[in-house]
Amino acid sequence: MGKIKIGIVGYGNLGKGVEKALAQNQDMELVAVFTRRQPEQLAAGGVKFEHVSAAEQYKGVIDAMILCGGSATDLPEQTPAFARLFNTVDSFDTHAKIPEFYETVDAAARQGGRLSVISTGWDPGLFSLNRLLAQSILPEGTDYTFWGKGVSQGHSDAIRRVPGVKAGVQYTVPVQSAIERIRSGETPDLTTREKHLRQCFVVAEEGADQEAIRQAIVSMPNYFSDYDTTVTFITEEQLQAEHQGMPHGGFVIRSGVTGENTKQIIEFGLKLESNPEFTASVLVAYARAAVRLSREGQTGAKTVFDIPFAYLSPKSGAELRRELL
Amino acid sequence: MGKIKIGIVGYGNLGKGVEKALAQNQDMELVAVFTRRQPEQLAAGGVKFEHVSAAEQYKGVIDAMILCGGSATDLPEQTPAFARLFNTVDSFDTHAKIPEFYETVDAAARQGGRLSVISTGWDPGLFSLNRLLAQSILPEGTDYTFWGKGVSQGHSDAIRRVPGVKAGVQYTVPVQSAIERIRSGETPDLTTREKHLRQCFVVAEEGADQEAIRQAIVSMPNYFSDYDTTVTFITEEQLQAEHQGMPHGGFVIRSGVTGENTKQIIEFGLKLESNPEFTASVLVAYARAAVRLSREGQTGAKTVFDIPFAYLSPKSGAELRRELL
Repeated sequence: MGKIKIGIVGYGNLGKGVEKALAQNQDMELVAVFTRRQPEQLAAGGVKFEHVSAAEQYKGVIDAMILCGGSATDLPEQTPAFARLFNTVDSFDTHAKIPEFYETVDAAARQGGRLSVISTGWDPGLFSLNRLLAQSILPEGTDYTFWGKGVSQGHSDAIRRVPGVKAGVQYTVPVQSAIERIRSGETPDLTTREKHLRQCFVVAEEGADQEAIRQAIVSMPNYFSDYDTTVTFITEEQLQAEHQGMPHGGFVIRSGVTGENTKQIIEFGLKLESNPEFTASVLVAYARAAVRLSREGQTGAKTVFDIPFAYLSPKSGAELRRELL
Repeated sequence: MGKIKIGIVGYGNLGKGVEKALAQNQDMELVAVFTRRQPEQLAAGGVKFEHVSAAEQYKGVIDAMILCGGSATDLPEQTPAFARLFNTVDSFDTHAKIPEFYETVDAAARQGGRLSVISTGWDPGLFSLNRLLAQSILPEGTDYTFWGKGVSQGHSDAIRRVPGVKAGVQYTVPVQSAIERIRSGETPDLTTREKHLRQCFVVAEEGADQEAIRQAIVSMPNYFSDYDTTVTFITEEQLQAEHQGMPHGGFVIRSGVTGENTKQIIEFGLKLESNPEFTASVLVAYARAAVRLSREGQTGAKTVFDIPFAYLSPKSGAELRRELL
């Protein structure tokens, strides 16, 4: 059987990450990147760009489309539309809307006889898997999820909207002492403030009132007022030199009991230098699974909960049992 | 649908752990414990004991048998025999013999139209799952598995065979500095000695030569000579008071790269106060999965790699998507 043929829809940080991840997987190949921009403007070494309107011509050629748009407006439209024509994988991450999204995509994929893996990546995705695994094994216990240290795009955008702010970036930082309490067997009730800090690095406009900016940030409802927030003013050069990465990560911890109050702790953690490149790598592994499940005749929407890990690997069942079990 | 009906085969630490775990899972019930001992000798509150030879009478009554024997001699005989009659779950952990064990059990289970989950628990089991997940997502990288701090039964037995030793227990301890190097992004080649320490707590016979015992232990090939080993002499009272638990745990870490040498680290860890109670909890969750897969018409041997996590939980797919994704 030939290589698994992949299309990428959207060529931002995530789409570029998928391109890089495909290069690490010898059983897969990139057929084309579909974009809403003029494809001629994106000419780059060896990659074929197509306008998104040309995607339908690739029906029957591309085995899975990896949808790299945003959850706010792109994916709610794109996933159902593509799911009628292709197997798809996406990283839809608006938690509250996942049930509705699932139903819509499921209907579209069934109608087209295709399979769609929705809401993968690391949260939702790998973190969700670990929440489910740990709860299933330890029915009596307490769950904790910590995020960071990592850049929050939404909070960085909020900083940039403050008058007098020229540029800025926000890091979500888990409170280490809270994690250590949980690892040591305590099951504390933690407030929002006790779980995460928010660190802001801000470039102010020339002549702006820095104290006013600081106050506006730390008192901002929903985003910062419930947290211990630090605001550090830096130069544009420092921002360029030290804050261009997109690190992230976090921890899912379940502290449970078995028998007569025997403590058992399950922990999963990620430490990522690039959030989009890692998310892309998860999408690519689930694209392999989507294609294999589809070839077995399965259709409809699936989540990470529905897919055995064996489908993520290019290795055979016998190889996996011999090498990894 | 009624509760899932479970039988336990073998009533050592693991079997007792399964009994406790079943009490935490409201959708399951313990029908009987099967033992090679005289069942009358095991009369205990509310549990029905049967001689193992009576098991066949429960065909069609018990939905899954959880096999709690040892991997050396019990399971190679018991799993194929039971797999012809019942869905089964076991914790067969002789890594080198898993492929052969799989084939034998697969044939038996198919012959009987049943489903058998083999080699579950935490290693093999949850650790295997994390090795597979991390390798699939980060094809370029290095894997590390550390065990402990925990009691090694095999090494404790080896200590007890040394002349002059009355009793003893051995803890495998991961080298913390090695773990920290990996977490910080290094990918060192580690020798056996650099990964784990071995701590021995020994009760000597009266008048025994402690230095001779120490030498015999630390120089013992296969068990201790490749490790930094400490030997601490304690009293029988101390052994009883401080070393009766069966803690264990460990870490699976994959340090990988994406794109242009972007570091990405995935880590899974367990900190267990009771190894057998935790292993039992994993077996119970996989027993639920075995019964559900069997009811869907699936047969043969399965490993943790073949089973979607959704099958481990009593919750519906819609509940899981809403609450945990």
